[in-house]
Amino acid sequence: MSSRTMSVRALATRASAVPANDPSRKVLAEGAGVNKAVAAIEYAVRGELVLRAEALAKRLPSVDLPFEKIVYCNIGNPQSVGQSPITFVRQVLAGITCPSLIENEGVFPKDVVERVRAVLRASHGIGAYSESQGIELIRERVAMAMEKRDGGVPTNPNNIFLTNGASEAVKTILSMLVRDENDGVLIPIPQYPLYSAAMTSFGGQQVGYYLDEDNGWSLNIDELEKRLAEARGKGISVRGLVVINPGNPTGQVLSRENMEDVVAFCEKENLVIMADEVYQKNVYTPEKPFVSFKKVVCEMGADLELASFHSVSKGVMGECGLRGGYMEIVNMERYVQELIYKVLSVSLCSNIIGQVAIDLMMTPPQPGDPSYELYNKEVTEIYGALRNKAIAMSDGLNTLEGVTCNPSEGAMYLFPRITLPPAAIKEAAARGMASADVLYCIEMLEATGICVVPGSGFLQQEGTYHFRTTFLPPENEIKGVIASMRRFHDRFMSKYS
Amino acid sequence: MSSRTMSVRALATRASAVPANDPSRKVLAEGAGVNKAVAAIEYAVRGELVLRAEALAKRLPSVDLPFEKIVYCNIGNPQSVGQSPITFVRQVLAGITCPSLIENEGVFPKDVVERVRAVLRASHGIGAYSESQGIELIRERVAMAMEKRDGGVPTNPNNIFLTNGASEAVKTILSMLVRDENDGVLIPIPQYPLYSAAMTSFGGQQVGYYLDEDNGWSLNIDELEKRLAEARGKGISVRGLVVINPGNPTGQVLSRENMEDVVAFCEKENLVIMADEVYQKNVYTPEKPFVSFKKVVCEMGADLELASFHSVSKGVMGECGLRGGYMEIVNMERYVQELIYKVLSVSLCSNIIGQVAIDLMMTPPQPGDPSYELYNKEVTEIYGALRNKAIAMSDGLNTLEGVTCNPSEGAMYLFPRITLPPAAIKEAAARGMASADVLYCIEMLEATGICVVPGSGFLQQEGTYHFRTTFLPPENEIKGVIASMRRFHDRFMSKYS
Repeated sequence: MSSRTMSVRALATRASAVPANDPSRKVLAEGAGVNKAVAAIEYAVRGELVLRAEALAKRLPSVDLPFEKIVYCNIGNPQSVGQSPITFVRQVLAGITCPSLIENEGVFPKDVVERVRAVLRASHGIGAYSESQGIELIRERVAMAMEKRDGGVPTNPNNIFLTNGASEAVKTILSMLVRDENDGVLIPIPQYPLYSAAMTSFGGQQVGYYLDEDNGWSLNIDELEKRLAEARGKGISVRGLVVINPGNPTGQVLSRENMEDVVAFCEKENLVIMADEVYQKNVYTPEKPFVSFKKVVCEMGADLELASFHSVSKGVMGECGLRGGYMEIVNMERYVQELIYKVLSVSLCSNIIGQVAIDLMMTPPQPGDPSYELYNKEVTEIYGALRNKAIAMSDGLNTLEGVTCNPSEGAMYLFPRITLPPAAIKEAAARGMASADVLYCIEMLEATGICVVPGSGFLQQEGTYHFRTTFLPPENEIKGVIASMRRFHDRFMSKYS
Repeated sequence: MSSRTMSVRALATRASAVPANDPSRKVLAEGAGVNKAVAAIEYAVRGELVLRAEALAKRLPSVDLPFEKIVYCNIGNPQSVGQSPITFVRQVLAGITCPSLIENEGVFPKDVVERVRAVLRASHGIGAYSESQGIELIRERVAMAMEKRDGGVPTNPNNIFLTNGASEAVKTILSMLVRDENDGVLIPIPQYPLYSAAMTSFGGQQVGYYLDEDNGWSLNIDELEKRLAEARGKGISVRGLVVINPGNPTGQVLSRENMEDVVAFCEKENLVIMADEVYQKNVYTPEKPFVSFKKVVCEMGADLELASFHSVSKGVMGECGLRGGYMEIVNMERYVQELIYKVLSVSLCSNIIGQVAIDLMMTPPQPGDPSYELYNKEVTEIYGALRNKAIAMSDGLNTLEGVTCNPSEGAMYLFPRITLPPAAIKEAAARGMASADVLYCIEMLEATGICVVPGSGFLQQEGTYHFRTTFLPPENEIKGVIASMRRFHDRFMSKYS
């Protein structure tokens, strides 16, 4: 992107005029006809496997196919596989959508009506653009909730930006951080492909650091130092570090001690921390509670810049379709705060329903509120089911021959490692596949209807093979999914042995 | 952006390692610390004037200020200034948000209940990600509605992409079209600053073509040819043309004949047409009905690529806060369709409420449906008020000394031209303002509380001065707004005469 600034000079030195476009060709055309960086984007979570799954789904039911339905384990989309929404959340959202509903006594509980009134007083409703940064009242309430979460560490509502999902916030920060093709950002391997896709489109360098699979996907500071030195040796100006905690696709939860080491490293090396914390409510190990990077940075008094991300799509709400997210920036220049405002203002504001959903996630009903009992029951059930399924699925996967799978301490995924026979690796290469795990996943889909994502879509150590699967199908189906995976796995291993 | 592809080579030829970052400085910092193209974005609709208005609003009520409230005429945000939402729309959206509501007889009319059921059958509800391109049923219904609108011209649902507002669609197409800093797109002057902001951030060349103010802001083919030749002479590869119809900020509606000339020009020169048609329902001149570029392109049999944009934010719904938009692509390569899918898939999907709102806008209740009578009454009232206000406001502005204002044939704006005294121009220059219309607008805001946007934010002929104002305040306030503008205008002219 440094070339953007050279445009005037570049044009001035061109002597001849550009000929008219060739009318026999499309303007937007494969190859030279589209922006190369955009064309190079890859996003496996909705890639080849999913398109094939959707094509198969259209043929169902079919006597030619050995399964009755597609089981989508490719994406953390809980409500698409049967998880119910939280009643309180939907009642408030319906009330602000159609305010005449709260005028009738008894349609909604009293605390729902109060929440609806508060939002309507603080805004022009869901049909008007809000401030570009998000409704002020909601940012204030999010700030208070974060302070409570972080044991009193102060939060400024002006540093909070409400966005269409966390993705928009991540892209906004990366678009500012990456100045040209010599700028790099440290990104975990394996990673959530939003980061690689965004870096590809902004033309920066992905500087991968490997998570340590043999030690529960832990984050090793020696590895960070090694990869940083390597990148600098190649002339890359490394400006930030992405950390996903709880991990996606790996499911690990960082210890406080490990986080302190990461913060100290970033402070010493002057790196912006981008902390993807969208799975903060999906933690299943009591001995490793979620701690925010904000809390660690502030309690250490570290002098570094931090952006953290959160979303209504995950947690126990799982409200993916609302596209509600937010970002908090910490220790950033006032200028940067204003620049983010400006960038977001070009799209006017994020959708208001998503903004309100963020408020409901951060400040849920409290004991004594009319909605509390039902809310608590629903949340407890969803959380309990997620935790049970995480354990059942990793236990099940570990019984497959040649498969090892770290337990999921958090998030919604498992990333089992599969030992593939040489014949399968050869077959995948012969068919021009990016990795042999693509072959494995395609054959799994075609044999069982289960759609998972090849590990190569998230990057992995050279010569290793994985896949990412969610554990989101309903509790009573999980056993069947595992049994189905086992039958396929055994057949696949025999076929290629 | 061509430099993106040079990264490997560029890095390989750098001999020395990059030093560590300077720990005494912020990483993201004004000047060299952020991406220059992003920093250069300008977006006047939410710029300096609006920030000043918001600061004033926080001081109200105040005896020091000569007005009681801020009148926001800076942005087409109808529901923020009193326009009511359409009952039918909000009932369906509340129903899909909280499906238990439709189980109780009598809460909603029967056709609302049926619409809710249809959406729930065709999707996993508002809480699940949909297909990246948008829910298939909704794309099919949009396609049918477009066919009806365009007198039978066929539409393929696979060419429709549902997005978070039209802005996301516009940015997606431009990001693919602009390959490097030598690529340009023809953009009207004056224009809606989304286009300039997006071109700035993608590093392409804005090739401005002037609309003819003296002829009702018409679009002149000679002007297009002249600007295209000029740009090619400078080495710019011009690849597309943006046309906003009805116009923003100008309010003109193109005649069919004029559109045919534009299409023929773009076909001859092999330019992609980007047709911003978000104001297609805001047409106030019976003798100039809205015609879509899709219809003209197809009926002429023109061999060119077209992307057209629509939104729920405008029209009579004015549902800005829902962020619902869509794009149709016509005559594009299958590869391009797949590339758009891939780009959008990185953000997973647009918000589902916005998707459903698009469906409701395109296929509203029909005569005989239980909701039709109320729907028709509400729509007729809103439309009638918009038309009356458009006339009242342009008539009023034309009575100001030295002000000329083309009537608004469509959209939600007027773009009056103001003749500013030399002393005002000198004063603005002395205060470092980008244009003297900034001075005019700031003084108007401080004297009246009315917030409009300087013409320089939309670009304009050198040496001319304008401002953009909406005509959205309630009908009973419009007279007061005009009177207030007149008092200010007279004082401003005396002050600087």
